[in-house]
Amino acid sequence: MPGIRPVFYVSDGTGITAETIGHSLLTQFTQTRFVTDRYSFVDSIERAAEVAAKIRASGEQHGVRPVVVNSCVDGAVSTALAESGALMLDVFAPFIEPLERELGEARERRIGQAHGLVNFDTYHRRINAMNFALTHDDGAATDYAGADVILVAVSRAGKTPTCVYLALHYGIRAANYPLTEEDLEHDRLPQRLRPYRSKLFGLTIDPVRLQQIRQERRPNSRYAQFETCKREVAAAEMMFRGEGIPILSTTHTSIEEIASKVLTTLGIHREMF
Amino acid sequence: MPGIRPVFYVSDGTGITAETIGHSLLTQFTQTRFVTDRYSFVDSIERAAEVAAKIRASGEQHGVRPVVVNSCVDGAVSTALAESGALMLDVFAPFIEPLERELGEARERRIGQAHGLVNFDTYHRRINAMNFALTHDDGAATDYAGADVILVAVSRAGKTPTCVYLALHYGIRAANYPLTEEDLEHDRLPQRLRPYRSKLFGLTIDPVRLQQIRQERRPNSRYAQFETCKREVAAAEMMFRGEGIPILSTTHTSIEEIASKVLTTLGIHREMF
Repeated sequence: MPGIRPVFYVSDGTGITAETIGHSLLTQFTQTRFVTDRYSFVDSIERAAEVAAKIRASGEQHGVRPVVVNSCVDGAVSTALAESGALMLDVFAPFIEPLERELGEARERRIGQAHGLVNFDTYHRRINAMNFALTHDDGAATDYAGADVILVAVSRAGKTPTCVYLALHYGIRAANYPLTEEDLEHDRLPQRLRPYRSKLFGLTIDPVRLQQIRQERRPNSRYAQFETCKREVAAAEMMFRGEGIPILSTTHTSIEEIASKVLTTLGIHREMF
Repeated sequence: MPGIRPVFYVSDGTGITAETIGHSLLTQFTQTRFVTDRYSFVDSIERAAEVAAKIRASGEQHGVRPVVVNSCVDGAVSTALAESGALMLDVFAPFIEPLERELGEARERRIGQAHGLVNFDTYHRRINAMNFALTHDDGAATDYAGADVILVAVSRAGKTPTCVYLALHYGIRAANYPLTEEDLEHDRLPQRLRPYRSKLFGLTIDPVRLQQIRQERRPNSRYAQFETCKREVAAAEMMFRGEGIPILSTTHTSIEEIASKVLTTLGIHREMF
């Protein structure tokens, strides 16, 4: 019976690439329990030697060989890390040689590039999208002409985190409109949304789950009653179907997946930041 | 002279893993111009065949072999994608066999796992952290006892996107405190921040850059004048140094990198979502 396997994401930059691929790999192994840690900005042999010693100690403590998911581009740094005795998984190594051959170009080993460099245009686009999402959150501002996307749902169905995610990672100007009880008394779209039909995306949620979320927010309110949740969700779904608005349930869906489905469904092409 | 190289991120889930590693790889090749696109939720052979045809057409259009960064776990789907004739980079393949051997366990080929599955605790933590960040944005609420981190800076130095990023990706309860002109007349920390010294992190920015950002927000205001920006930034930096608050310039730093440095500096260990 194996115990707990320590896994380390090690990078010369933020470590986001190493952690993203590492996490994706670990989710494919369901029998092992993992404990993970991250060492970012490991950009010298001295720092790598320190980190290697800590990783080695962790392996001794758990009585098992650690795993290192490594995105450092400097070979000497990687060699120093390998002194830990861990299983070394270098996230770039397998792809560099085929890419160099295909592109007819040698890669440049500059550290911490992927999430470090900042270009002012990109930064601007991101920050402006974020400001848009925050000022257009929860129906606060309703000048939707500049929006790329308008998420529509009852309160607490997952609109805000999705809008913020779309802004942060894709520079999308995402507004959201909370369906009020008054809106839900009618089968038709609220007046102010009608001019923007092609930008609308409806979110829905299991009423049981919605009730849990609302209960935590406003305990024992009418808002949090199961009957209220059930009625609102049913009315919203009926409106979306009647109006031909695309619809997705957030109940078992991560923020990343909701965001990705919104982009795919509305046919919006944007590079991730 | 090579033209533009089309690159496709293809996934049976959101495509975030493929795009993250692919983007990191491409940044290491500086001579080639890339054009990228994403196909998410490619979870059947039929869909893969459609996508392969589009990728093949793109290669013909650009007169160059496309590159596919593929994170589909179903081998038959990958085989169908390879019909595109593209250079296939499978982001998991090189790591599965060493991990299987090391862990003594076969991987499970369940599609779209990394960013798809949702566990209620995780979702809760993320959403609560996000609510915290939004209610504690820009000094709106100042009950800092529950904060993990408090970012301190002059207006428009990058506090809000960093707080939101920390909440979304690490479930960190991140507040931010904007230094007012009144705060900056004193060398000492504002009274209400003093009890939370160990949670404070100071952001600074090049006054030239700050002026550009403020000018866009409130054109030709005193707030956006270079002299104002310069004076505020100098006063804030002096305060941080005098009080021993860690400090980072956001001028050339991405949101990811700021977030990562905050965690590293304050010694906060959290897995990424």
